[in-house]
Amino acid sequence: MTATSTDIQTLAIDTIRALSMDAVQTANSGHPGTPMALAPVAYQLFQNAMDYDPAKPHWPGRDRFVLSCGHASMLLYSTLHLIGTKATDIHGNPTGGESITLDSIKKFRQIGSVCAGHPEYAEAAGIETTTGPLGAGVSNSVGMAMAEKWLAANYNTDDLTLFNYNTYAICSDGDLMEGIATEAASVAGHLKLDNLCWLYDDNNITIEGDTDLAFSEDIGMKFEGMGWNVLKVDNANDVEALNKAVAAFKACSDKPTLVIVKSIIGYGAPNKQNTHGAHGAPLGWDEVALAKKSYGLPEDEKFYVPAGVKEHFADGVGKRGAAASAAWEDVWTKYQAAEPAKAAELQAMFDGKLPQGWDKDIPVFEADAKGDATRNSSGKVLNAIAKNIPFMIGGSADLAPSNKSDLKFEGAGEFLPTSYDGRNLHFGIREHAMSGITNGLCLSGLRGYCATFFVFTDYMRGGMRLSSIMHQPTLYILTHDSIGVGEDGPTHQPIEHLTACRAIPGLNVYRPGDANEVAECYRSAMMISDHPAAMVLSRQNMPTMDRTKFAPASGCLKGGYILSDCEGTPDVILMGSGSELYMAVDAGEKLTAAGKKVRVVSMPCMDIFAQQDQSYIDEVLPPAVTNRVAIEAGIQMSWDRWIGSNGKFIGMHSFGASGPFDQVYEHFGINAASVEKAANC
Amino acid sequence: MTATSTDIQTLAIDTIRALSMDAVQTANSGHPGTPMALAPVAYQLFQNAMDYDPAKPHWPGRDRFVLSCGHASMLLYSTLHLIGTKATDIHGNPTGGESITLDSIKKFRQIGSVCAGHPEYAEAAGIETTTGPLGAGVSNSVGMAMAEKWLAANYNTDDLTLFNYNTYAICSDGDLMEGIATEAASVAGHLKLDNLCWLYDDNNITIEGDTDLAFSEDIGMKFEGMGWNVLKVDNANDVEALNKAVAAFKACSDKPTLVIVKSIIGYGAPNKQNTHGAHGAPLGWDEVALAKKSYGLPEDEKFYVPAGVKEHFADGVGKRGAAASAAWEDVWTKYQAAEPAKAAELQAMFDGKLPQGWDKDIPVFEADAKGDATRNSSGKVLNAIAKNIPFMIGGSADLAPSNKSDLKFEGAGEFLPTSYDGRNLHFGIREHAMSGITNGLCLSGLRGYCATFFVFTDYMRGGMRLSSIMHQPTLYILTHDSIGVGEDGPTHQPIEHLTACRAIPGLNVYRPGDANEVAECYRSAMMISDHPAAMVLSRQNMPTMDRTKFAPASGCLKGGYILSDCEGTPDVILMGSGSELYMAVDAGEKLTAAGKKVRVVSMPCMDIFAQQDQSYIDEVLPPAVTNRVAIEAGIQMSWDRWIGSNGKFIGMHSFGASGPFDQVYEHFGINAASVEKAANC
Repeated sequence: MTATSTDIQTLAIDTIRALSMDAVQTANSGHPGTPMALAPVAYQLFQNAMDYDPAKPHWPGRDRFVLSCGHASMLLYSTLHLIGTKATDIHGNPTGGESITLDSIKKFRQIGSVCAGHPEYAEAAGIETTTGPLGAGVSNSVGMAMAEKWLAANYNTDDLTLFNYNTYAICSDGDLMEGIATEAASVAGHLKLDNLCWLYDDNNITIEGDTDLAFSEDIGMKFEGMGWNVLKVDNANDVEALNKAVAAFKACSDKPTLVIVKSIIGYGAPNKQNTHGAHGAPLGWDEVALAKKSYGLPEDEKFYVPAGVKEHFADGVGKRGAAASAAWEDVWTKYQAAEPAKAAELQAMFDGKLPQGWDKDIPVFEADAKGDATRNSSGKVLNAIAKNIPFMIGGSADLAPSNKSDLKFEGAGEFLPTSYDGRNLHFGIREHAMSGITNGLCLSGLRGYCATFFVFTDYMRGGMRLSSIMHQPTLYILTHDSIGVGEDGPTHQPIEHLTACRAIPGLNVYRPGDANEVAECYRSAMMISDHPAAMVLSRQNMPTMDRTKFAPASGCLKGGYILSDCEGTPDVILMGSGSELYMAVDAGEKLTAAGKKVRVVSMPCMDIFAQQDQSYIDEVLPPAVTNRVAIEAGIQMSWDRWIGSNGKFIGMHSFGASGPFDQVYEHFGINAASVEKAANC
Repeated sequence: MTATSTDIQTLAIDTIRALSMDAVQTANSGHPGTPMALAPVAYQLFQNAMDYDPAKPHWPGRDRFVLSCGHASMLLYSTLHLIGTKATDIHGNPTGGESITLDSIKKFRQIGSVCAGHPEYAEAAGIETTTGPLGAGVSNSVGMAMAEKWLAANYNTDDLTLFNYNTYAICSDGDLMEGIATEAASVAGHLKLDNLCWLYDDNNITIEGDTDLAFSEDIGMKFEGMGWNVLKVDNANDVEALNKAVAAFKACSDKPTLVIVKSIIGYGAPNKQNTHGAHGAPLGWDEVALAKKSYGLPEDEKFYVPAGVKEHFADGVGKRGAAASAAWEDVWTKYQAAEPAKAAELQAMFDGKLPQGWDKDIPVFEADAKGDATRNSSGKVLNAIAKNIPFMIGGSADLAPSNKSDLKFEGAGEFLPTSYDGRNLHFGIREHAMSGITNGLCLSGLRGYCATFFVFTDYMRGGMRLSSIMHQPTLYILTHDSIGVGEDGPTHQPIEHLTACRAIPGLNVYRPGDANEVAECYRSAMMISDHPAAMVLSRQNMPTMDRTKFAPASGCLKGGYILSDCEGTPDVILMGSGSELYMAVDAGEKLTAAGKKVRVVSMPCMDIFAQQDQSYIDEVLPPAVTNRVAIEAGIQMSWDRWIGSNGKFIGMHSFGASGPFDQVYEHFGINAASVEKAANC
């Protein structure tokens, strides 16, 4: 049977549609309507607009594509398959064969297929980020666009342009209703990111029905108010209009661009198009056949790729991308000769490695009874590290002076609409977008970090979870970590957040107990390139311990360690973290003076401690010693495993209270005396 | 010394300023600049605009005031003090004396003072909601405005108008940068809430410095795009301009209103005004003195209330409010006579009680091996309850068909811009605002609920936490509760969320294990009027247990209970929740058949189980029986307490995978066979 599509462009677009329908129908699960609606948009972007080399899907100069409405994953899989994307590892080394095989598409949404329900980063080359939670992808895209601006400003020379790429994101009503998307859009508009283009699928349909039920914005006006260039395409099937819009985006040099594309969900399915019946459920084979008929494709062929379609893409995006990547390689070769030092930095970045000597300036802090707040120590350590990692950049959600997250060394600079070379970012009071943007920075090769008050992790858990799912080394600097916040009261005092963050699989939650533990926790976090880290830091001072008396802080690299010990088997093990560690130490000294055999264990990172060999865990916490007391100014839950059934816990059992921090501690009985008493019970 | 202010209005405004400065300075902690800037706005609202009776701060017909920028708490405390707000309990019964005494203000930010760092609901009459986490307050205000519309549409008669109040919120740059605020604004604009007025403090200053660093929106255009009426006041000190703006708000009958008020942070402090130095730290006594001098107030008097100021407020808001509340009481008396049935409903609502017979239609489900998804049972139980609680309303973040959260009985109706009497709300894909709005509904006396996928609690934890801090009975209906989500994959499969939600103090997290447990968990949640509840529900089916064979589901009221037991002391205790409970039961039957003595414990709500007497806890989980196995398709952390040091756990140790749900369960080894094996180890 011969395809009857009038031209190869239409045939290629309809093939994306048909593959997507077939995959969803075969899985009997998924979202067919949006791939059917947006096939022309994906086609136009890859075939006509983007510098993208399917043979080198990790080439650093490529344009980025983000499918923010990740439920339309088949749109991406079908397109990556048809353009002939090659399989690589995450560093871009070819692993042989296709990134997305037709067989993977046939196993859409099955265990083991790279074609998961939503696009999962690193499952297959060409998936630039994990999307699915709405709004996340567009926030990543802002980070990617910022990364390009930063790389261009810092590495391009007058003669050699290494970085000059655009980031495109397709997004849906759902993305744009989410607060994170507005936050991210506001950042992009403020920063005048003219290398960023969002294509908004305006289809008037959501799961509950028409968007009229809950959505009646003038999106264009809203985005203009946020400093965007707003364009409209009245018909998603009008590739020429899409070409013109993208050309207008490329011509705009002072704003990000939103292209509002009117589309028909489930386009071509005669009975379901333009209804929410085409959104989140398979169409049924009968309707699939009717849709194929409407496209002029054979009705009963499944996973059919008509002759000429792959060749058409090879002639378009394939050839253009190959030329662009070859030109980039040529520039890169020249750059390595002309700028060897900068090229070495970039090579480390491309390889996901830290530069030689990155840790050479990490300070050692002298013992000091008065000590310091770990947020202050963090500021020092962060600066000492970032100074030697040129591609480490970040900022705060308007709390830099409190978070001590500013880079203050010479040349650090500010990243502003007027200066893209600076390393201090200003996210505004937009925590959720901050996390998504920082993930976008990391996905672009940078070591991104971001900062806010610990309690506001509640505002950005979605992004933190995605850092972990994507195995990105996103660093979260989280100060004001307990009732030690003091006067700001219950809303600003994290109580449950240590447990809640420790609960996120793969997120390493560090809560250092003095300045040297801060240093070693940073060392640990920086060396782990495939997991995010949360650095949880105090507002208030704590002593800097005398490490000639106590074990070295390098024990932090194992997550938990014996800080001080007794002869023989302990009568009691005291444990603590952060600003309560010294309370355990104080109690230990009193108990020792009273004749008890006491071990004190510092537990700056339970996640890493739990990954140690059982022999080390048993060495630190001998199973036979069941008299254990833990102290932490948070809830007990994450400690249950370590204190055991006979253990006691000194901590919080309710929300906090507004008052000077030391009085709040006394009010809740979190102090050395409570530890001592519990140990004696 | 005589105050030299030119007129009593200015004197009253400056007194708000001076009290606020003195309190912050005495506490040596807090935010002086915004109260100084916005004193005229608070003055204008209370004195000139609002129907507010300081003698009856809980009068149902009052205008609501929300200080969304809660860090400016002294603005509220000073104003409530000066207008003479009376102390009451949360039901409005007078408790004698003032709500905010001068002594409380002197103890601002001290333990035990009702004047906490941020306004805490129920600490003092007149604090309509807990604010502090930015954006939360404005989201509450949308809920309050929706509540008024709903109450008016359902209860006002042609002759008797009980509900006709406005909601005012003061908000800051920080509020409006947060995604939750844009989400809430979009809902308000869509719903055409003409009873809602936000006054935006446009001062160009944030903690990091000028808002130029990160904020350059045309806020007016953005809000117009969201369907708002946008007004501007060029000078916060121009009370006449504020009067006009509020009059224009009152005259607008088809949109919510945003008044953009240009202000000078720290107004009057000669060296710190208009700088971020006036934002988050005390000014210093010297600067306080200079500011007082600039106002013409005595420089060295602290907590000074000039003669005439309280009388001025008594003559204004006091008299106007007394007249308005008296008029309302008159209408209410007539209403009780004319509409006794509806009046009884309202009286129950005002008293925070459920109507007689609210639970009479809760279904009992018959045993069924195939069973049902708990989301389906939830839909039935929710409808059976809501039918008998006229003031129970709610909706979903665009997932009602999946969450089964629609009220389908006759007359339930849709709450839309064209019909405010409906009980089904449509929040759009805006989870965070949804939670804040639902808190606003509850603060208005309604029993509000809201629904989304469980994994998206990550998007709304801020709101959930505030439900608990405020002791509101907000009901969260959270479906698709585990890897049972299946094909949607890791981003949509909650793994850590049960632990993370159980970690929130005061939030009761229910995960019923069959249809009858759904019924009993709802019964429990509805009877607890001072805590929020999370109802965590499956997408997939589970058997409906034969309660002639197993213990009755009413055991849910104790959080955990013995579902089936053996003779004598068990060899092993098996525990589970939700869709894994039947796996524990199956394993128990096999183990029993093999000669083991097995107890099966159902644990639908750990939070409530933990509150039982120790004797009950020990009865269910005898300390001597340490061979315990728990099964739950989530992480282990929250189970450690119940399984103990020797316990075993069958569950998740990583993110999930995309595939058909039953295959995902097998892939991760979450099944009866694993329980059986663990029990035999």
